[in-house]
Amino acid sequence: MDYSEEEDGETETMKCVSCKEEYGSRDAGTCRECYEEASETEEELKREIDDLKSKVSFLRFFRGLHLSPPPFSDVVLVASDDQSVSSPVPVQAHRAVLASRSPVFRAMLENKMEESLSGTIKIGDVSYDALRAFVNYLYTAEASLDENMACNLLILAEKYQVKHLKTYCEKFLMSKLNWENSVPTYAFAHQHSAKNLLDASLSLIIDNIAKFKKREDYMELVEKDPRTVVEIYEAYLSKQVNTAASKDSVTKS
Amino acid sequence: MDYSEEEDGETETMKCVSCKEEYGSRDAGTCRECYEEASETEEELKREIDDLKSKVSFLRFFRGLHLSPPPFSDVVLVASDDQSVSSPVPVQAHRAVLASRSPVFRAMLENKMEESLSGTIKIGDVSYDALRAFVNYLYTAEASLDENMACNLLILAEKYQVKHLKTYCEKFLMSKLNWENSVPTYAFAHQHSAKNLLDASLSLIIDNIAKFKKREDYMELVEKDPRTVVEIYEAYLSKQVNTAASKDSVTKS
Repeated sequence: MDYSEEEDGETETMKCVSCKEEYGSRDAGTCRECYEEASETEEELKREIDDLKSKVSFLRFFRGLHLSPPPFSDVVLVASDDQSVSSPVPVQAHRAVLASRSPVFRAMLENKMEESLSGTIKIGDVSYDALRAFVNYLYTAEASLDENMACNLLILAEKYQVKHLKTYCEKFLMSKLNWENSVPTYAFAHQHSAKNLLDASLSLIIDNIAKFKKREDYMELVEKDPRTVVEIYEAYLSKQVNTAASKDSVTKS
Repeated sequence: MDYSEEEDGETETMKCVSCKEEYGSRDAGTCRECYEEASETEEELKREIDDLKSKVSFLRFFRGLHLSPPPFSDVVLVASDDQSVSSPVPVQAHRAVLASRSPVFRAMLENKMEESLSGTIKIGDVSYDALRAFVNYLYTAEASLDENMACNLLILAEKYQVKHLKTYCEKFLMSKLNWENSVPTYAFAHQHSAKNLLDASLSLIIDNIAKFKKREDYMELVEKDPRTVVEIYEAYLSKQVNTAASKDSVTKS
């Protein structure tokens, strides 16, 4: 056996099977057995991902609305408030798909309401592009988002109770959250009951409360939406009290 | 620093961060950095799996046919050759779903054929249970399989060109492959062009060719389906020739 390294006063090093670098005991990760187990787990997870991706692709309806018009369409949706065009383009769809994805559409279409009888569903306060992206999501669980589209789709998801899309938009908007947009995002989340987005934006504001009053949009917010400002201060105070109480209990214990 | 272990002539051991056991250089796995990276990768893969599962669940149509009859159904499927009942129970469905999942249904329903006009699709050589499981798979990408059901669904998947279901059944049948069922499985795979299942069952038979002639079902197979027997022998010989050729080239080189 070769003890040369130890004789030099160096501790023995091991060779990492992954990066092939040598490492000492301070940088020890796993033994070979655990490494092999972890590799197997990773392979299994990747196989599961492939299976699920193939399921998603199978379950996508006509791979979206790229086929225009889709076969056997029996209902159209119209962006009724789209001011940009005189005669808005209808988005063709299937009653069964709309009803399967949204309890609101289902009630509308099953209950012999105007929409069910005429075969036309008017959607207010929405552009043609947002409506088309909304309907496409119901067929594919996919949307290409920017911040504006995510807000539009979140509003539609809220209105038609499409939880999966609402969560998807919330996650996207949370990934775009920063100090600049924190206050409008908070107000938006509040208005559309987007709980996760609300919590994330409120946290960001409270953590920077000293800067809050100095924001350019502060006076405008106080003017237009004083309740939101009050709520932010209340949340800040409530957090302060909680922090003080927990510090207090640590000191006493 | 403590060199006691080294002074004893023992090599230094490291502690695995995963199983907490000590290990020596022979059993070295990864360094800490690679371990941490791998853990992050695992977390990411798990998050991706959760996302995909939620997509699959969203895209499932009415979560299958548990709602009976499903709303807005506009076509029925009937197991026309089901001898077990005098008036077979129809399976209600949607033209749009059938057409989206199967090019055969799509052609049938779009082209004003008898099925499209009557709204009734007759499916031959199938039980009600298999037909229902088939239609349910088109809505959910899920089926509860045993070997019999997997064979029935593979036949339907082949006939109506539902590739995803065919692969699903093939995988299941491959997981159940053994010496006992290898010959009937090979014949079945052959009949229904199930390539992966065919290769797997043929390999198993060829690897045990000495036992092949002694099988109980051998004489029956020769009687009923001599071509299959010939093909098996041909495949065996072709493999032998290949093996010999590659051994030969190794010897010469």
